[in-house]
Amino acid sequence: MSLAPFSLEILRKKRDGGHLDEAEIRAFIAGVTDGSIPDYQVSAMLMAVFLRGLDPGELGVWADAMLRSGEVLDLGRIARPKVDKHSTGGVGDKISLCLAPAVAACGVAVPMISGRGLGHSGGTLDKLEAIPGFRVDLDVERFIDCVDSIGVCLIGQTAHLAPADRRLYALRDVTATVESIPLIASSIMSKKLAEGIDALVLDCKVGTGAFMKRLDDARALAQAIQVIGQAAGKRVSVMITDMDAPIGMAVGNANEVLEAIEVLRGRGPADTRELTVRLGGEMLHVAGAVSTEAEGIARVEHALDSGAGLEVFRRLVAAQGGDARVVDDPAGILPQAPATHEIRAERAGYVAAIDALAVGIAASALGAGRQRTDDQIDHAVGVDMAVRVGDTVSPGQVLARMPHRHRGLERAAALMRAAFTIDDKPVRAPGSRIIEVLR
Amino acid sequence: MSLAPFSLEILRKKRDGGHLDEAEIRAFIAGVTDGSIPDYQVSAMLMAVFLRGLDPGELGVWADAMLRSGEVLDLGRIARPKVDKHSTGGVGDKISLCLAPAVAACGVAVPMISGRGLGHSGGTLDKLEAIPGFRVDLDVERFIDCVDSIGVCLIGQTAHLAPADRRLYALRDVTATVESIPLIASSIMSKKLAEGIDALVLDCKVGTGAFMKRLDDARALAQAIQVIGQAAGKRVSVMITDMDAPIGMAVGNANEVLEAIEVLRGRGPADTRELTVRLGGEMLHVAGAVSTEAEGIARVEHALDSGAGLEVFRRLVAAQGGDARVVDDPAGILPQAPATHEIRAERAGYVAAIDALAVGIAASALGAGRQRTDDQIDHAVGVDMAVRVGDTVSPGQVLARMPHRHRGLERAAALMRAAFTIDDKPVRAPGSRIIEVLR
Repeated sequence: MSLAPFSLEILRKKRDGGHLDEAEIRAFIAGVTDGSIPDYQVSAMLMAVFLRGLDPGELGVWADAMLRSGEVLDLGRIARPKVDKHSTGGVGDKISLCLAPAVAACGVAVPMISGRGLGHSGGTLDKLEAIPGFRVDLDVERFIDCVDSIGVCLIGQTAHLAPADRRLYALRDVTATVESIPLIASSIMSKKLAEGIDALVLDCKVGTGAFMKRLDDARALAQAIQVIGQAAGKRVSVMITDMDAPIGMAVGNANEVLEAIEVLRGRGPADTRELTVRLGGEMLHVAGAVSTEAEGIARVEHALDSGAGLEVFRRLVAAQGGDARVVDDPAGILPQAPATHEIRAERAGYVAAIDALAVGIAASALGAGRQRTDDQIDHAVGVDMAVRVGDTVSPGQVLARMPHRHRGLERAAALMRAAFTIDDKPVRAPGSRIIEVLR
Repeated sequence: MSLAPFSLEILRKKRDGGHLDEAEIRAFIAGVTDGSIPDYQVSAMLMAVFLRGLDPGELGVWADAMLRSGEVLDLGRIARPKVDKHSTGGVGDKISLCLAPAVAACGVAVPMISGRGLGHSGGTLDKLEAIPGFRVDLDVERFIDCVDSIGVCLIGQTAHLAPADRRLYALRDVTATVESIPLIASSIMSKKLAEGIDALVLDCKVGTGAFMKRLDDARALAQAIQVIGQAAGKRVSVMITDMDAPIGMAVGNANEVLEAIEVLRGRGPADTRELTVRLGGEMLHVAGAVSTEAEGIARVEHALDSGAGLEVFRRLVAAQGGDARVVDDPAGILPQAPATHEIRAERAGYVAAIDALAVGIAASALGAGRQRTDDQIDHAVGVDMAVRVGDTVSPGQVLARMPHRHRGLERAAALMRAAFTIDDKPVRAPGSRIIEVLR
């Protein structure tokens, strides 16, 4: 395919709602990658794409061009099926921490390249770094070795994977072009497909604590993700899951690791376990390791209940330089905050809602998250829920505990007091978080 | 009005089709002017405005903010009504050269700040510079003196007038956001209103040789111009005029000056004279110098036929450093090309069409125009039509003459040969170029 240079004609065509052909899209992404297209033209194109969209044909090529803008990992020497999961981000979303080792224990390889938290949603890398010594900056050779020997490794984005996405994302962030389905989908998929995986499960969160507030938007993103997966010849499933209340009980970093270890012990909150089992079952299914969804679920449940997943986690922590004693004595190894603030019920009633967005912002205000990419994370602080939606509460009962270092406490406490809706009438405990699965 | 700083919220609002309030628009234009908003955000906003538009309320504020981004001339010491004309640009459009002196001879002041040519349409300043010694870079004091004493002065854009437009225009040019009605209208009006005028006539060209190809677009631009004029409390008329065939006989620089002097002698091509008289009559009308359009037309006709306009032109040339002998001996004073190429009819028939765009590009190829803003103009070269639409031609008859210096001749000649449509059936000579007048 001969590569035409980028020209204003391409920008004009998208501006007018036209269909960009393959050479035009590749010329744009090549110019984004090598820097030959200046920021002001890239941002004009981003706004045009935001407002005009990309049709399915354009979307597949766009994501493929982004994916090929850098290195694509060659995991050919790993015999097992290679499968990953990506979440669009939630509050208390520690699923990767228990899911990846549990699924690896079921015989597939999980080469997981993950992100950091920003705003109200935490990042898997930040949570892992709560474990003393844990390194997420392994080079590609060590990453592949680790996936090959243990079945799983969790590292951060390298400079060589999908560099076009890094430039596009930085510009989207400052030009009000973040919330675009094709741009989000191609950003996610370019990074994930560069991992050299065979199959992917996307956890597309919807609700007050998620990036997508409306089910329609989540479905549109799911569809765009599948269009890209299909164009790339990869099996991709999307689970749309509820993100109105925080996931599990812990929101922070060290406390989320603790909860993930509980799940790996066959315990932990029901919803954290449900997400782990369902997403894990789906991963085994799309990877072709099982023939039915039910079989996949049963395999992951067994990995949790037998401790097989926990053993993989122990080896993973050790391989990535972390203190593996965290598996047996998490409270003793993980950092602890010097003080705890309690949020108590002012009246009797039933917990009707817990606002995940408010909880996320509260944890972030304490130092568990970042407002800017260069903020430092405090791994010890956060929020531990003491009640769930549907629970009965009496006056003075503890609703949540907040390990803190005084910083940001006033604002966080105010947010947390307002995060709980207590009703007079009984409230049904929510059922499954899984809204629908698109295969 | 307190000025909020520019924020992504403003960009997001326009992106989503919202109405920007006055403070938001002023914050954006202020940030464009002082450079605090980076190029990539300005260009994202330009694309959002391109695709979402500006409603009438936004448009008036946007143009006003641009106008006030720099100096606004104070012509208070000039007692006469101050009125200007602006053309959206055509091929062979030398109207300002004969119009401005003729209208000034009728007792109004014409403080005309003009532009240079780019692409296929020439610029008034380039044409004036064909007169040896003519200076278009007078400072503001001398400009006002000249308007005060002679009634007219023609200079180039200064760095102090509407600086926001300069930055926006430069970015529009490289981000495919030129062809936007609100952006065009606010660009024109911010510069014109900064002249300190009381009233304005816009010559909005439509046709193959014009920027606007469709009457609907011309009407939309006319309407936007009037919205801005109304918001600024200025009387603004718009004439929509035909730009399918070149205006008059000359397309170039020196040859256009020659044609303008012919018109100022009461002669010249009928269409060049018609545009001068009709636009001039309208200028006198919107300036309040006459009470009817017919009276305005009669006054301008008299200024041409009596030589009064020519005398103003003579004084203007002298005041701006040019060789005033050009008035009496244009052919002797204006630069001449060393060679002339003739385009001849290959068959007998009737001239059905002359493609203004092709003629404009041909003249530009010879050196009469520029492709890039730093190209040098050759004032002596160009195209002189020898026939008009409706004329009968016989085989071998000269259709056009092209004074040239060999540069670009082959391409220009090929364009010119294809520019004429010769039909077997008689063709009616076109009537008025005035399509409609919006007041």
